[in-house]
Amino acid sequence: MSPQPDLPDPAHHDVDSMLSRKFGREVANYFSGSTLNRVSFLRTDYSFISAALTHKSASFLLLNDLAPLAKDPSQLAYAKHEDIKSLIGDNPFAKSEDELIKEYNSSVTLPLVLFLGIDERKKEGFEHGIYKGKPFFAVDVTPRGTVEKEASAVIEAMKAKGLQFVEGRMHMSLNAPEAAIYAHARALTDWNARNPFCAGCGQPTMSVNAGTKRVCPPTDYAALPNAQGGATSVPSTPNTRAACVTRKGITNLSFPRTDPTVIMAVVSHDGKRVLLGRQKRWPPHWYSTLAGFCEPAESVEEAVRREVWEESGVLLGRVVIHSTQPWPYPANLMIGAVGQALPDGEKIHLEYDPELEDAKWVDMDEIREALRVGTSGLGEAPGEGYKEGGLRLPPQTAIANQLLQAVSGGFFNGSTSL
Amino acid sequence: MSPQPDLPDPAHHDVDSMLSRKFGREVANYFSGSTLNRVSFLRTDYSFISAALTHKSASFLLLNDLAPLAKDPSQLAYAKHEDIKSLIGDNPFAKSEDELIKEYNSSVTLPLVLFLGIDERKKEGFEHGIYKGKPFFAVDVTPRGTVEKEASAVIEAMKAKGLQFVEGRMHMSLNAPEAAIYAHARALTDWNARNPFCAGCGQPTMSVNAGTKRVCPPTDYAALPNAQGGATSVPSTPNTRAACVTRKGITNLSFPRTDPTVIMAVVSHDGKRVLLGRQKRWPPHWYSTLAGFCEPAESVEEAVRREVWEESGVLLGRVVIHSTQPWPYPANLMIGAVGQALPDGEKIHLEYDPELEDAKWVDMDEIREALRVGTSGLGEAPGEGYKEGGLRLPPQTAIANQLLQAVSGGFFNGSTSL
Repeated sequence: MSPQPDLPDPAHHDVDSMLSRKFGREVANYFSGSTLNRVSFLRTDYSFISAALTHKSASFLLLNDLAPLAKDPSQLAYAKHEDIKSLIGDNPFAKSEDELIKEYNSSVTLPLVLFLGIDERKKEGFEHGIYKGKPFFAVDVTPRGTVEKEASAVIEAMKAKGLQFVEGRMHMSLNAPEAAIYAHARALTDWNARNPFCAGCGQPTMSVNAGTKRVCPPTDYAALPNAQGGATSVPSTPNTRAACVTRKGITNLSFPRTDPTVIMAVVSHDGKRVLLGRQKRWPPHWYSTLAGFCEPAESVEEAVRREVWEESGVLLGRVVIHSTQPWPYPANLMIGAVGQALPDGEKIHLEYDPELEDAKWVDMDEIREALRVGTSGLGEAPGEGYKEGGLRLPPQTAIANQLLQAVSGGFFNGSTSL
Repeated sequence: MSPQPDLPDPAHHDVDSMLSRKFGREVANYFSGSTLNRVSFLRTDYSFISAALTHKSASFLLLNDLAPLAKDPSQLAYAKHEDIKSLIGDNPFAKSEDELIKEYNSSVTLPLVLFLGIDERKKEGFEHGIYKGKPFFAVDVTPRGTVEKEASAVIEAMKAKGLQFVEGRMHMSLNAPEAAIYAHARALTDWNARNPFCAGCGQPTMSVNAGTKRVCPPTDYAALPNAQGGATSVPSTPNTRAACVTRKGITNLSFPRTDPTVIMAVVSHDGKRVLLGRQKRWPPHWYSTLAGFCEPAESVEEAVRREVWEESGVLLGRVVIHSTQPWPYPANLMIGAVGQALPDGEKIHLEYDPELEDAKWVDMDEIREALRVGTSGLGEAPGEGYKEGGLRLPPQTAIANQLLQAVSGGFFNGSTSL
């Protein structure tokens, strides 16, 4: 029934697998590893979504300006249906999507209610057809538009229970399965909030597919401005809006955006050193792997070679992809790779793209030592045993750390690092 | 100087590389392998872009409604500066980007002129500072707006030279290096054409960074409509536009969108069979690997497991990424992977996501035979030796074919397939 049934987590289970024997265990990076089955194909089935939303086991993760509700920085908190009824109504999915589009009124704020999925491992879940599990939703409670007052009241009620909205990017302290749920909720809530207008025609859009799609409705019940600059009364029949190309066929403008990025551990031709770079704003002695955005119409392997050359002047031969990490700030997919310098391509040039303050080759022993004592979040203290002046590196929750572990831990000799 | 200098192509060169020895040669998929250095960091340097555009060696790939100018279906044709001067002017990059934004007038159509990069291997190139090469641009000659007449004239002049604009998706016949140039030009031209308005505020946007970014200008010289529904004359000072969130800091709304997708060869737990699926609209006997879009906040490995379960019910353990392919229809990055079914996860269910007409396990021998005689583009004839009723598969230009070659050709025993 599920991509992650009651079997042990495939990513960490020692299955008798040829891929595991050849490539080692899979690295499951932070922000991945959600325990929810998204059942993505059921998002248009509002009878399913309605049953999930109104079931007593349904959990709602609230986001206020993207800050998630939490018990403490390591654990999310969830609201129940009755906590948010005053904001979202009894059931925003009671009517079909087609009916809701026909009723569209751009002057009324509909708070985003996002279906995240079902946790099939929980016993207290609901049942609908062949599906069974505990439903999870996210709700955007940011006070705005015509529901400002109702949203503020929900926020205050949650705070009165001793819960908090955790701001900033301090979500690296969340336990791993909940970090994945938070990333999922944050990415889609942000995408909806960031795209209130249609890039194809400039008119306001509305959320459908339980929060995972935005469409440009053909009509609008919003009152038009009158000659005095005020508003006319709400019309009995809706106004027809200007034509829009997104209403013909399928277009990516309607769907959430994810920006692929590359991040790469670059090893010298002899495999004994790793190329690291640093940005000016980082704390002293702090370095990391190089990274950058994939561009339109280039492969990941090409993006890795381009970015490494642009930022450091180093020329790469073979590039191998290691693992990937969702990164919801705001919508990145980090694709982690290992690249090897060409024999004559190891000279560092910083004069092309002036993005880095420094780039240098670091011996594997120094990398291993820094992974042992020099890792932490930016602005946090390093580990025990760190000596001032030693190399600082990103924490285990960052894919950069995982890539450095791989190349310094036997990536080339068939061990379990990849 | 370049990610692809005068050294042999790293992707196909038998370098003495540890990554090549361990993982085999890199698979360079069709639409990748561009010979151009994008020098992406120079796109804001309009003195560089101006020098490139006005140099006699500059080549311009023209796209009419995304159809590229070509000599024949296997070879692109390029215009020279004088061919398009009447449309784009002497030099659209003569003023700085800041000046051009200040002069923004939404009622005037500025045809897209897109800097693609420089080919450093060509001797006839231009020199600018430390950079040297033959510049390549793309120009959108689709007749529209205030330059409709000029654009149509350019199109007619090109046709009069015996050249053609190749329509449809028949670009798989282009030679590989030019397919990459075309993919690059198409992806960015389409992105610009598809996004004339700001998704953050609904106002028209303008192209900057030599065609690779769109901004929401703070002012507009366009005449406002007058009380009679006509237009007032062009104002002497520009109108101030409504505030927009994209003008504060950096936002992904300004940058081209690339949609990551997963495509995967799924092998049975014993490695002896491959899971294939077929869509209803495909010709008889035609099957391929499963594929789907990555969702926000999931890793590639998770997307592979989710899509395979949703479309076929099969449960996967370890997933390994094989290679990637840009796919400019309109903006996909295909991430090719190999996944292995869990011992108890091989049963096929088509009742979840009803996307496929059929899915089935196919023996490796049948895959190998179909790769030998049964491949072709959709709607084309299979190869010599094909027997009616035999399995049909996608051509070598598709990453699906490369993945099937990998898993049927020793992916698991350390040969050069990955």
